[in-house]
Amino acid sequence: MDYEEIRYEIDGPVATISLNRPQARNGYTVRMADELAAAFDRADRDEDVRVVVFTGEGKDFCVGADLSAGGFDVSEPGAEGQDDWKEPAGRCALRIFAMNKPVIAAIRGAAVGAGASITLACDYRLAAKDSRFGFVFSRRGIYPEGASTWFLPRLVGLGTALDWMISGRLFDAAEARDAGLVHAAHEPDQVLDEAYSLARDLAANTAPVSIAVIRQMLYRLSALESPYDVQRVDSRLIAGLPTNEDAAEGVMSFLERRPPRFPGTVAKDLPGFLPWLDDGTAPRSA
Amino acid sequence: MDYEEIRYEIDGPVATISLNRPQARNGYTVRMADELAAAFDRADRDEDVRVVVFTGEGKDFCVGADLSAGGFDVSEPGAEGQDDWKEPAGRCALRIFAMNKPVIAAIRGAAVGAGASITLACDYRLAAKDSRFGFVFSRRGIYPEGASTWFLPRLVGLGTALDWMISGRLFDAAEARDAGLVHAAHEPDQVLDEAYSLARDLAANTAPVSIAVIRQMLYRLSALESPYDVQRVDSRLIAGLPTNEDAAEGVMSFLERRPPRFPGTVAKDLPGFLPWLDDGTAPRSA
Amino acid sequence: MDYEEIRYEIDGPVATISLNRPQARNGYTVRMADELAAAFDRADRDEDVRVVVFTGEGKDFCVGADLSAGGFDVSEPGAEGQDDWKEPAGRCALRIFAMNKPVIAAIRGAAVGAGASITLACDYRLAAKDSRFGFVFSRRGIYPEGASTWFLPRLVGLGTALDWMISGRLFDAAEARDAGLVHAAHEPDQVLDEAYSLARDLAANTAPVSIAVIRQMLYRLSALESPYDVQRVDSRLIAGLPTNEDAAEGVMSFLERRPPRFPGTVAKDLPGFLPWLDDGTAPRSA
Repeated sequence: MDYEEIRYEIDGPVATISLNRPQARNGYTVRMADELAAAFDRADRDEDVRVVVFTGEGKDFCVGADLSAGGFDVSEPGAEGQDDWKEPAGRCALRIFAMNKPVIAAIRGAAVGAGASITLACDYRLAAKDSRFGFVFSRRGIYPEGASTWFLPRLVGLGTALDWMISGRLFDAAEARDAGLVHAAHEPDQVLDEAYSLARDLAANTAPVSIAVIRQMLYRLSALESPYDVQRVDSRLIAGLPTNEDAAEGVMSFLERRPPRFPGTVAKDLPGFLPWLDDGTAPRSA
Repeated sequence: MDYEEIRYEIDGPVATISLNRPQARNGYTVRMADELAAAFDRADRDEDVRVVVFTGEGKDFCVGADLSAGGFDVSEPGAEGQDDWKEPAGRCALRIFAMNKPVIAAIRGAAVGAGASITLACDYRLAAKDSRFGFVFSRRGIYPEGASTWFLPRLVGLGTALDWMISGRLFDAAEARDAGLVHAAHEPDQVLDEAYSLARDLAANTAPVSIAVIRQMLYRLSALESPYDVQRVDSRLIAGLPTNEDAAEGVMSFLERRPPRFPGTVAKDLPGFLPWLDDGTAPRSA
Repeated sequence: MDYEEIRYEIDGPVATISLNRPQARNGYTVRMADELAAAFDRADRDEDVRVVVFTGEGKDFCVGADLSAGGFDVSEPGAEGQDDWKEPAGRCALRIFAMNKPVIAAIRGAAVGAGASITLACDYRLAAKDSRFGFVFSRRGIYPEGASTWFLPRLVGLGTALDWMISGRLFDAAEARDAGLVHAAHEPDQVLDEAYSLARDLAANTAPVSIAVIRQMLYRLSALESPYDVQRVDSRLIAGLPTNEDAAEGVMSFLERRPPRFPGTVAKDLPGFLPWLDDGTAPRSA
């Protein structure tokens, strides 16, 4: 698999997916979107990959849509009128949303427009102290993408989301951290190390099947109207614990105070009754 | 249009709607509710108005339902049993919710009961440091109104909303700011100036059509179960960018480092396929 | 009613329900779950009880599922395949969710796994400064229960919920307070006193029927897609105020600056049209 605008690297259980147009401050393009979607899909299907770190080459994460041609390179000829055409930020963001494994964004410099939107479905956003964010759509005469109007209020509350998206102003890492958009703000030369440290901890100590289920429970079940519908899923999952090898290993390793070695894999052991497996949005064989 | 209990003023692109019963600390009445709904509707339909500032004459924003007659003046004879009767706080709050332009509440003194509820659909709440808030329903033997049980948890989280609404206690501007209810707490004599400064910034730098769409996306799409449904709306909006004059002006003004002059208007250019335009809740011709 | 693993005590308007296996650090069992559900049901049906304090005997609130038999004591023989089997954390959490009166959790020491999940439907979580929390499922190869994936994002936002549930790490009372999981962190020997002080304040100053309605409005109506659906409930409630004796007492006691004596009771005066009364989840006669 050849990528032109991103990089894909594996180090043990951690895959790194990097925006790789530093000469253009990682300006977002349709090609970049499709390469990102393919790379996240690849990482999701590779059982040896446990965690993905998502970052950008150079000083910026992503300044937003590439404007080098004098206009937005985020629409395609003939897109209008095609019912199934998907805008580019969502191709990346929704693929991250459907992941069975955690994604940690490591952000330096600018994360603006599409460059901010594509981080919102990540489980963690670690930022450099000098990073800056902006949902600048209102100031460019355009619209939010990447389902950012779904994710952002869930992360920072509706009041902050309205402020950021109506004003379109830029804000810094400290404001992003205080609002809950980023989990921590680190020195710029340490943010990637912090992301890898977290990635290795998650890979060493958590069960792949549990993570795959928990991620989707938090995203999909929290959005339901009624907690009784969540209770039904919970109960089927808990009912299966007596024969669950991961659960047995979880108890044994805890009682023996040793690191766990969970035998379950997403490919073999993901419970088949999970309600989101049938709606066509989950990765098919990952 | 004559108003008895509110004021309506225009200064350039900013409309100011003020509760105007300072002798009664802006005690909320059915008449005030209907005048507010009419005034917000008027501001929404006036294309020269870009932003609304919502405030109160005198020392208080609004102490809640007017009790001068010894009971609540928020119900009407025969209201019970009328399926389509709408309680007064909601007449104002839901009209603000449906606005195509931003509303900034500038709050001094008390914002209690209905006086707190009618601010929750505003995009910004700027408060004076001496302001105080209360969702006092439980202490008066009554119930929340203005769809405040929908808005408040979205703004401050369910835990804080439960605390404030179950205890019914008063709290100050600092607590409101820390919880995310108000965006900033200013000196009392500066809160209105800050609201106007923000209003002028929004009017000068943002596109009217973008703002109209973003507001409703954040309110309406964030409440959907699935981000894939949001992606469909995003994609139709982004697909239209190549022929969008506001988007072209947004790029050009950004590249030329000058203020934008967006040509689009809500009356002419609001995309017709937005899912909330058909449900009877959006203002018809604004 | 005999309880083996919990305690049930009444002091004036306040019921205390305590986990009572201090020798096992209140390890959670199926029996404990059923006794808790019965005890909350009993408190809900007792009109003399106005508020419930939920706590644990000994140094810990609850360390999670009892592992003394070398495995999880949270599943039952034959549970798998029974469509209506309910996992134990949800038996407690969902019964708290349906309560008509406030529940205040007073937490000391560990609140981990099921011990954290069963507190999430409480209206208040008061913690000791030395308490620690953990949604440790991913580290045990298991899954969240008690509809915790519905409650937790509503309390602390999706970003923090993802962090806590994906990492499975333990965190302290300060982090829990800053994130909004606990309302306050007190000295360990004062947390129970603070809970009783709050309980007495709520019992003395709030209307039982208002509280019953407000609790469910915040939980059930905030989860709806549209605030217009909330407006319909609000309007029916407000329309009934002219003949509402609690509302009359609320105004009179406020104007006379005296404590209220609300005549309404949940058994007699709960409005019959509330939409959640018909879905089989509300307590029948309470």
